[in-house]
Amino acid sequence: MSQSLSHRSRVALLRAELKRRKLTGFFVPRADEFQGEYVPAYAERLRWLTNFRGSAGIAIVTLKKAAIFVDGRYVIQVRQQVDEKIFAPFHLMEQPPAAWIGKNLKAGDRLGFDPWLVTADQAQRLRAACEGVGAEFVALESNPIDAVWADQPRRPSAALATQPTQFAGRTAAEKLKDIRAALGSNDAVVLTQPDSVSWLFNLRGFDVPHTPVVAAYVILPRKGKAQIFIAKEKITEEVAAHLKPIADIRPSKEIEAALKALGKAKSKVLIDASATPERIREVLHRAKAQVALGADPVSLPKARKNKAEQQGARNAQARDGVAVTRFLCWLEHTDPSSALTELSVAAKLQEFREETGELKDLSFETISAAGPHAAIPHYHVEEESNASLGQDEIYLVDSGAQYIDGTTDITRTVIIGTPTPEMKDRFTRVLKGMIGLSRIRFPKGTCGSQLDVLARQHLWAAGLDFDHGTGHGVGAYLSVHEGPARINKSDRTALEPGMILSNEPGYYKEGEYGIRIENLVMVQEAKPLDGGDRPMLGFETLTLAPIDRRLIASMLLSDDERAWLNTYHARVLKEVGDHLEGEELAWLKRACAPV
Amino acid sequence: MSQSLSHRSRVALLRAELKRRKLTGFFVPRADEFQGEYVPAYAERLRWLTNFRGSAGIAIVTLKKAAIFVDGRYVIQVRQQVDEKIFAPFHLMEQPPAAWIGKNLKAGDRLGFDPWLVTADQAQRLRAACEGVGAEFVALESNPIDAVWADQPRRPSAALATQPTQFAGRTAAEKLKDIRAALGSNDAVVLTQPDSVSWLFNLRGFDVPHTPVVAAYVILPRKGKAQIFIAKEKITEEVAAHLKPIADIRPSKEIEAALKALGKAKSKVLIDASATPERIREVLHRAKAQVALGADPVSLPKARKNKAEQQGARNAQARDGVAVTRFLCWLEHTDPSSALTELSVAAKLQEFREETGELKDLSFETISAAGPHAAIPHYHVEEESNASLGQDEIYLVDSGAQYIDGTTDITRTVIIGTPTPEMKDRFTRVLKGMIGLSRIRFPKGTCGSQLDVLARQHLWAAGLDFDHGTGHGVGAYLSVHEGPARINKSDRTALEPGMILSNEPGYYKEGEYGIRIENLVMVQEAKPLDGGDRPMLGFETLTLAPIDRRLIASMLLSDDERAWLNTYHARVLKEVGDHLEGEELAWLKRACAPV
Repeated sequence: MSQSLSHRSRVALLRAELKRRKLTGFFVPRADEFQGEYVPAYAERLRWLTNFRGSAGIAIVTLKKAAIFVDGRYVIQVRQQVDEKIFAPFHLMEQPPAAWIGKNLKAGDRLGFDPWLVTADQAQRLRAACEGVGAEFVALESNPIDAVWADQPRRPSAALATQPTQFAGRTAAEKLKDIRAALGSNDAVVLTQPDSVSWLFNLRGFDVPHTPVVAAYVILPRKGKAQIFIAKEKITEEVAAHLKPIADIRPSKEIEAALKALGKAKSKVLIDASATPERIREVLHRAKAQVALGADPVSLPKARKNKAEQQGARNAQARDGVAVTRFLCWLEHTDPSSALTELSVAAKLQEFREETGELKDLSFETISAAGPHAAIPHYHVEEESNASLGQDEIYLVDSGAQYIDGTTDITRTVIIGTPTPEMKDRFTRVLKGMIGLSRIRFPKGTCGSQLDVLARQHLWAAGLDFDHGTGHGVGAYLSVHEGPARINKSDRTALEPGMILSNEPGYYKEGEYGIRIENLVMVQEAKPLDGGDRPMLGFETLTLAPIDRRLIASMLLSDDERAWLNTYHARVLKEVGDHLEGEELAWLKRACAPV
Repeated sequence: MSQSLSHRSRVALLRAELKRRKLTGFFVPRADEFQGEYVPAYAERLRWLTNFRGSAGIAIVTLKKAAIFVDGRYVIQVRQQVDEKIFAPFHLMEQPPAAWIGKNLKAGDRLGFDPWLVTADQAQRLRAACEGVGAEFVALESNPIDAVWADQPRRPSAALATQPTQFAGRTAAEKLKDIRAALGSNDAVVLTQPDSVSWLFNLRGFDVPHTPVVAAYVILPRKGKAQIFIAKEKITEEVAAHLKPIADIRPSKEIEAALKALGKAKSKVLIDASATPERIREVLHRAKAQVALGADPVSLPKARKNKAEQQGARNAQARDGVAVTRFLCWLEHTDPSSALTELSVAAKLQEFREETGELKDLSFETISAAGPHAAIPHYHVEEESNASLGQDEIYLVDSGAQYIDGTTDITRTVIIGTPTPEMKDRFTRVLKGMIGLSRIRFPKGTCGSQLDVLARQHLWAAGLDFDHGTGHGVGAYLSVHEGPARINKSDRTALEPGMILSNEPGYYKEGEYGIRIENLVMVQEAKPLDGGDRPMLGFETLTLAPIDRRLIASMLLSDDERAWLNTYHARVLKEVGDHLEGEELAWLKRACAPV
C-alpha cells in the first residue's frame, strides 16, 4: 500500500519522474497556491516526501542529493522527523537554498519548480542562484510529486459563507470601490492572498482549520466587474446571490486565459511579488501585460479595522475572556495531583470556549505547555509528548478562538503551587515589558520596530531577552497572524488606528520553564493633551483575563506600572465579572485584587 | 566684475553654455568629488548659481525652467536666499528631483550632469527618471558651470599631516592588511570617502574647515601596492616617507587610466555605490571590469574605535569638558545685561577651548542660540541674526572641537535667570530621554532604531517629540558626523563595541525656546550579570560637563534616573574639578550637587 511507502521509496519515485522529465532536481516548498500559513492535505507535498511536520520548510531533491531547510524553530524537530541519511538538514537563514544551489548545482543542470507554489520574489532569487552556476530554474507545467503520490488527498471544497455586513462594517461593493480608487495608474490588480479576497468580498471559507479564508484568485479591474476564480462546488446559492452584482464567478483553471486577456489589452497590472505565484507573473509577462509590482492594496485597509470590526473585536475578546477566566479558576481549583495533562487541560479550555455558544473554531492549535515544555516558545503537544502538570511548576497556555465578530489570541502563564523567587523576577520583567508597550503614546508614523524595545528593556537589564517577535497583526474573524504591521526588531510599517496587534513578550529558560504574557491591543487616536504639539496614537487593550498575581514581584513594579495593572484588573473584574457568579466570581475578585 | 554678476545673469550664462553643448538642462548638486559634508569654495557651484547657502541642496536648470530642492531644515531659508522668480523651490523628499524630471522633461531632452559629483546610486535613480519620459541623463566630460564661472576659486592644496600611531592605535600597514583580508573574492576596492582614506592611511588633511580629512581616491588591490590619487603639492616630505612603503602616490587625473587597467586585467572591483562617483563606476564598467557593489569596507573598522582611539576619545572629552565647564561658569557669573550676544558668547567658548593649548579646530560651526533661536535645531548665527541673551530666557549651545586624540560634540542648554515651570517640565523630559539611552543594556546585534524610542518616550507621553535623529556616529579626529551607525527611527546598523555616538534628544517650541542635551557615548561590552543568558552591550558616557540643575524638575525623575544623574555629576566634579580651582571649582561643586 502506498500509504506505508517509506520516504526512501518516495524519493526514489520522485527521482524516476525527474529523470523522465529530463530534470536534475526539484524544489519542494511547504506551500499551496495561496501561500497561507495552513496548507490543505493535498498540498502537504513536503511532508509526504520527507515526513517533516513543521509549518515552514523547503526541500531540494536532485538525482543524487537531497536537502531540507528549516528555520530556527525546527532545527531540533527536523532531525527527529526526517531521515538524515536521505535529507541533509540546513538552517533556512544561515545556509539558505540559494547558497546550497550555488554549491551543489553545475552548468547545464535543470532544477524544476512548481510556479504556482513559489512566489515571484522567491523565483527571482532562486533563478539568480541557478544562473550563477550556469544552471536553469525551470517552471514546470505540472507538479512531479502529484504524478507519483498515488493516494494524494482531493482538494477541499467546503462551501463558503457570507460575512454579515453587521460584522464586516462595509459591504463588499463599498470595499471594492475603495480599492479601485487606490489602484492609481494600474488598470487592474490580481489578488491572490486568501485573507485579502475574504475580507474584500465579505466571504469566509473552511478548507483549512483555524483560518476561515477563501482560497480563490481575483482579478479586479479599475473599470468593469471583478472576476473571482474558484471551484464551483464551494459556491452556495446564497453566496452566488451575494456575488452576482459585484463579481463574475469563473472556474479556477480559467485564470490563465483571463491573465492573457489582460496582456492582449496592454493592461498595466498590479501584483504583490512577495505573495503572488510566479506563474501569474510569468503568464502576464509573456502576454505582454505591463506588470507593476507593489503591495497588495487590500492589505492595509484590511488591517485598519473599521468601527464595526473594532466593536466586534471588543465583544469577541470580552466573550473569550469569560471562557479563559473560568478556565483559570477551574485550573486553580483542581487538585494538580489529579492527573491533569497538557492535552486534557487544553481540551477543558476548549470546553469553556464552546460553552460561550459562539465558538466557530480555535484560531490556532493551543500551545499547552507544562514545566520545561513552556521553555519552547512554539511547543506543540501531541500524544507522545503529553506531560502532566507538576507541583510548583509553571503552566503556559497560548490559545485563541474564532468568533463571527472577531479572532482572539491570548497567553497566560500560571504557577501550579509556589514559584521560585527567580520565576517571580522573570515573570515581573516580562509583565513590565507588556505594560510598557500597553501604556505607550506615540506619534503618527511610528512603526512596530520603534516600540519593540519597550517590551524587552527590563529583560535586557538582567542580561536576558526572548527570541521571537513581540507582536503580530490579528484579523477580524480571519487569520490570527495578519500583515502588514508587526512589533519586532525590524518592521517598518506605520501603526495606524484600527490595527489589532498582539503584545506578547516572554522569557524562556531551556529545560526549566517558560513565561509569556499576551494581550491583544488595538491602535487608537490618543486623547490630545494640553500643550501637546502633534497628534498621537496609543493602544487600547482588548484582552480581558487576570494575570497571575502569585507570580508578580510587586516591589519591582514602578508606581505607573502598578497603577496600570490594578486598573486593568479592575476592568477585568467589571467586564468579565458581570458574566460570572458564585465561586467563579469570588475567585475573580481575589485574582483581580490590587497588588 | 563677475563677482557681482546677478544670479539671473549667472543662469543666463549657464543656459548659453548648455545650448552650445546641445543640452536641455543641467543637474547641480551641492557636492564635490568626495561627497563630504563640507565643500571647498571651488565646488560651491550651487551657491554660485543660486545664492543658496545651506549644507545640502540640488538645482536643475533647463533652458526654460529652474528648480531648487532642499530638505526640511531649509524650506524657510531657501526663500530668503534664492530668487523665487528664477528658481522654483521644492521639498527634496516630498517633491524630489526625479518627480520633477518626470513632469518637466520630455522625449528627446538631454539633461547633463557632472559624473564626478553624482554618486552611482543617484545616477541610477535619475537616469531611470529621465528614461521614464524618453529623455537622456548625460554624463558630461567637463562641468559647464566651471566654463562660465570666471572667478572660480582654485582647488585647495593644504599640506597633509600624518596621524601618530600613538593616537591611531594601529599603523597604516596593519590597517591595510585587515582591509585586504576583508575583500573576499574582490580583486580590489576603490575608496572615495575622505574619512575612509584618512583613517586607513593615518593621514589628516586641511582643505575644508572642521573636518581634517584627505581628499583623495585610493585603489587598494588585494595583492600589490595601494595607489593613492592626490594633488602632489599636498605631499610633504614626511608624508611621502610615511606613504612610501605602503602606497604609490599618483596625480589625481591618473585615476581613470588606473581604473581602465583594472578592467583590462578583468578584475572584480568593489565600490560603494552610495558614495562613489558615477564616473568611477562608468569607467570600470566600460573597461569591462566586474563591478561589485557593497559597503565601503573601511566604514565599520573605522567606526569601531580601537583601544588607543577609545582612550584618545576619553582624554579629548575630559579636556573639552574642562573648557565647556569653565565657559558655563563664566556665563553664569556674567551679568546678562552686559550685552552678551550669540556671537560674542560663542567666541568666548572658543577662547576657553583655545586655552587648552590643544585645539586644532572646532568640529563644526558653533550653534549659539538665544531664546526663540534655540527652537531652530540647526540655527546658524550670522551678523544679521546675532541676538542678545535675554533675561529669563534659555540659551542653547551645541559645539565641538577637534583635538589630535579625538573629536568632541556637546550641547548644553542653560537658563539665564529663572525658568518657567513648562521649561522645567520639558527640560526634564528631554533629560529623562538622554538618561534612558545612557543607561540601557542591550544584546549584541541591536540597532540604533531599536533604541531611539528610549530618548523620546517621555516627550511622547506629553504629546511632544523632536524632529531630528537622536544620535550620529563621531570620528576619531575626523568627521563629527560619521557613519554607518546612527540612533534614529530607521537605522539598521548593529551597534558594536568602540562605536562613538551622540545622544542628543531635544524639544523645540517654535518662536519661544528650544532645549537639547547632548553627550557622546561609546558602545562597550557590558559586565555579565548573574543569571544573564547572553552577551550584552552598553554605553560608556564620554562627555563631561554639568547639566543645568536649575532646569530640572526633580520630582519628575525616577529613582534610577536621579541616581544616574547624581553619579554622572559626581564624576564630572571629580574628573573636571581636578583641573579647576578657586571660583570655578566652587561653582562646579554647586553645579554638581545631588538633586
